[in-house]
Amino acid sequence: MLEALKEKVFRANLDLVKHRLVLFTWGNVSEIDRKSGLVVIKPSGVSYDEMKPEDMVVVDLEGKVVEGNLRPSSDTPTHIEFYKAFPHVGGVTHTHSTYATAWAQAGRDIPFYGTTHADYFYGDIPCARSLTQAEIEGEYEKNTGLVIIERFKKDDLDPLAVPGVLIKSHGVFAFGKDADGSVYNATVIEEVAKMAAITEQLNPTVVRADRFMMEKHYMRKHGKNAYYGQKK
Amino acid sequence: MLEALKEKVFRANLDLVKHRLVLFTWGNVSEIDRKSGLVVIKPSGVSYDEMKPEDMVVVDLEGKVVEGNLRPSSDTPTHIEFYKAFPHVGGVTHTHSTYATAWAQAGRDIPFYGTTHADYFYGDIPCARSLTQAEIEGEYEKNTGLVIIERFKKDDLDPLAVPGVLIKSHGVFAFGKDADGSVYNATVIEEVAKMAAITEQLNPTVVRADRFMMEKHYMRKHGKNAYYGQKK
Amino acid sequence: MLEALKEKVFRANLDLVKHRLVLFTWGNVSEIDRKSGLVVIKPSGVSYDEMKPEDMVVVDLEGKVVEGNLRPSSDTPTHIEFYKAFPHVGGVTHTHSTYATAWAQAGRDIPFYGTTHADYFYGDIPCARSLTQAEIEGEYEKNTGLVIIERFKKDDLDPLAVPGVLIKSHGVFAFGKDADGSVYNATVIEEVAKMAAITEQLNPTVVRADRFMMEKHYMRKHGKNAYYGQKK
Amino acid sequence: MLEALKEKVFRANLDLVKHRLVLFTWGNVSEIDRKSGLVVIKPSGVSYDEMKPEDMVVVDLEGKVVEGNLRPSSDTPTHIEFYKAFPHVGGVTHTHSTYATAWAQAGRDIPFYGTTHADYFYGDIPCARSLTQAEIEGEYEKNTGLVIIERFKKDDLDPLAVPGVLIKSHGVFAFGKDADGSVYNATVIEEVAKMAAITEQLNPTVVRADRFMMEKHYMRKHGKNAYYGQKK
Repeated sequence: MLEALKEKVFRANLDLVKHRLVLFTWGNVSEIDRKSGLVVIKPSGVSYDEMKPEDMVVVDLEGKVVEGNLRPSSDTPTHIEFYKAFPHVGGVTHTHSTYATAWAQAGRDIPFYGTTHADYFYGDIPCARSLTQAEIEGEYEKNTGLVIIERFKKDDLDPLAVPGVLIKSHGVFAFGKDADGSVYNATVIEEVAKMAAITEQLNPTVVRADRFMMEKHYMRKHGKNAYYGQKK
Repeated sequence: MLEALKEKVFRANLDLVKHRLVLFTWGNVSEIDRKSGLVVIKPSGVSYDEMKPEDMVVVDLEGKVVEGNLRPSSDTPTHIEFYKAFPHVGGVTHTHSTYATAWAQAGRDIPFYGTTHADYFYGDIPCARSLTQAEIEGEYEKNTGLVIIERFKKDDLDPLAVPGVLIKSHGVFAFGKDADGSVYNATVIEEVAKMAAITEQLNPTVVRADRFMMEKHYMRKHGKNAYYGQKK
Repeated sequence: MLEALKEKVFRANLDLVKHRLVLFTWGNVSEIDRKSGLVVIKPSGVSYDEMKPEDMVVVDLEGKVVEGNLRPSSDTPTHIEFYKAFPHVGGVTHTHSTYATAWAQAGRDIPFYGTTHADYFYGDIPCARSLTQAEIEGEYEKNTGLVIIERFKKDDLDPLAVPGVLIKSHGVFAFGKDADGSVYNATVIEEVAKMAAITEQLNPTVVRADRFMMEKHYMRKHGKNAYYGQKK
Repeated sequence: MLEALKEKVFRANLDLVKHRLVLFTWGNVSEIDRKSGLVVIKPSGVSYDEMKPEDMVVVDLEGKVVEGNLRPSSDTPTHIEFYKAFPHVGGVTHTHSTYATAWAQAGRDIPFYGTTHADYFYGDIPCARSLTQAEIEGEYEKNTGLVIIERFKKDDLDPLAVPGVLIKSHGVFAFGKDADGSVYNATVIEEVAKMAAITEQLNPTVVRADRFMMEKHYMRKHGKNAYYGQKK
């Protein structure tokens, strides 16, 4: 079942290692097959060294395991909330990458300081609020998703235009059209997070870059008249 | 004697290099065989490149070499104090990993700032007090262990729930159920130490994350009803 | 056409990866053949892993593609302005390398703090001003070049004596006698940017090093009586 | 002539790359043969990738090339002053390693903050004063050596007990009993420099560690009754 997708999600998970976004088992990637409504995701707590494509777990949008001998990632309910709330999101990545997690622990949005940021994010990278005690002691992973979605609704953010988010005191979720796209965006977030931290050290009174620069850079890559890259 | 354990301790020592926790010979790992009360530990000052499994040294809980042609790590008396004081600790790792050592040199506990920390440490990572001149000029390595144990007793800490500690102006000791577990925790400490340093740069007035979040994250991995990872 | 130069520019682009100056496709290198007035440059948005020498694009000084099946780098108009304004520049590199980009985002020139800097840069590494909204919404990439050239004219800088520049809120352009020289200088900028950031952390009131030291170091490598390196 | 020593000095120079202390050609290592009074040193400006053992240059203590087809390192006169002033020094390394150079640019001694430092340095790592304009415009490289020696004399430092020094606004020189020892100490300086920088970020009011701790750590490795490592 979904063998090609399992292979793809398997490789996308290994890319977390390649891009130095994870230590041990601290990350996971999923992709949804919108036709069947099934999600393929990394198994929980399995090391990247030992993982095989057939270890990927297939779950439905209620979180029920449809295929696979292993437990899915403990973060599966968070992934599922995103697929339910964001119909254009096809892939989700979760990491504890170093600099991005530091911003999450600092409880701060990553401000738009330059074009590296604007090439992928149409605005600040938001940091979702802390979960309440009730939210944590209840369906914690599901609520993590809901709190993030709450922020996207409140600020009217498109998860493909702002394809990533920090969770206060926790880590990163990144979105993409597919698994690979979400890993790509998770990699961008870590680099942008590092650049922004050094920027503030060098200029403690730095302010955001100009909005028209953001507009230009985001649109030359992602707009209707995008001219970056090759014609598809 | 204890050939399988020597092989295991040898490999655990090499993992220090793999996880970039050591420069030159600046670290050591041991594991105790509780049945015989014997400890297998890295030889002193031998480079990881040249070391062989049979170079591991077997000592008893008085620190007497029972087998091996080389001197055991000069930190052996510290390891031994831990095995005597903490009956559930099976492995001990010592490193001078960069960020953790900086916290030790700063003389500060590493505060609980997020879930990466709480996934492995049930509370702050303590920094033990400085040794007095008498403690340093006396049985220095043994006293290093005793000063750490004093801190664990004073704060009523379980060395498997808070499996690591800084020594003021010195470095790190990490604990585990076995050698591999202690290397794993030493790796976590370094990453958590780095994240916490960047967190404070980004938000100089940051406070600890919520205690109920710590509770949740620690327990979903290590509690009675843990659901992270695969069923054992 | 220009096969040897395509091979050279191809290899210079791969050196960006080797020197860890780029993530994904975030950089590009070009070299001009002054006899024909043709420029060889990386194609836009093509990954370094998959790129082949024959993918390099040949453009003329009006930016028209003379040979090649792929679109040239979107930054091509910036490169072209440099080749038109600076007759001794033979190679140009663009990157978003981490520390240099942080200085650009901070909107600051990198001050001359030591000999590592002076061995390659005869003075501060300038940060060009922000582009106006009109400049960004107009011929953006061309204007990026013009704003940089404006700074070099204003301060009377020789782009081979100060072979690099930051663009506010953006990244780095480096110059060289050829493609390889510009990659070399881009690598120096990143290292000097990192050193300068740490220097300011260690001494917030640090001032520039002595001008006669700059004179000495720059000249022993690049002056008429240079004695660094081997006789050519 | 001195073939074994050329091979050794060649390998020691390559170790600079292995320990990530140099970019391009930014470092050099030498060793003296005390019997003949001849020094073997890296050639100037030759890349580590292309260098061969037979490229090492033999010079006498007046700096005259005794054997070799290439120019010796431009820093040769500095090395020679050390061999003349410090009869127990057998090897010298020069680098611009990142953190150590930042301390040099900050114009600060690296304070003794912990045992990693004390295991190799019996006290702060000094930063020699700036050279005057006359010293720089005269025999610059020789004067660099003399200014460092001036600091060692003034503070009565033993270059094997404090086997390294920063030069203001420049970089690092490290000493050893032989070439390998000096590379080892250059590696220690970079790591200690990094740890000390992070330490000060974490605790801006940190003070030096206790002198009796320094005494203990230095002596257990280097004192008459040293017990670290294996019996020789």
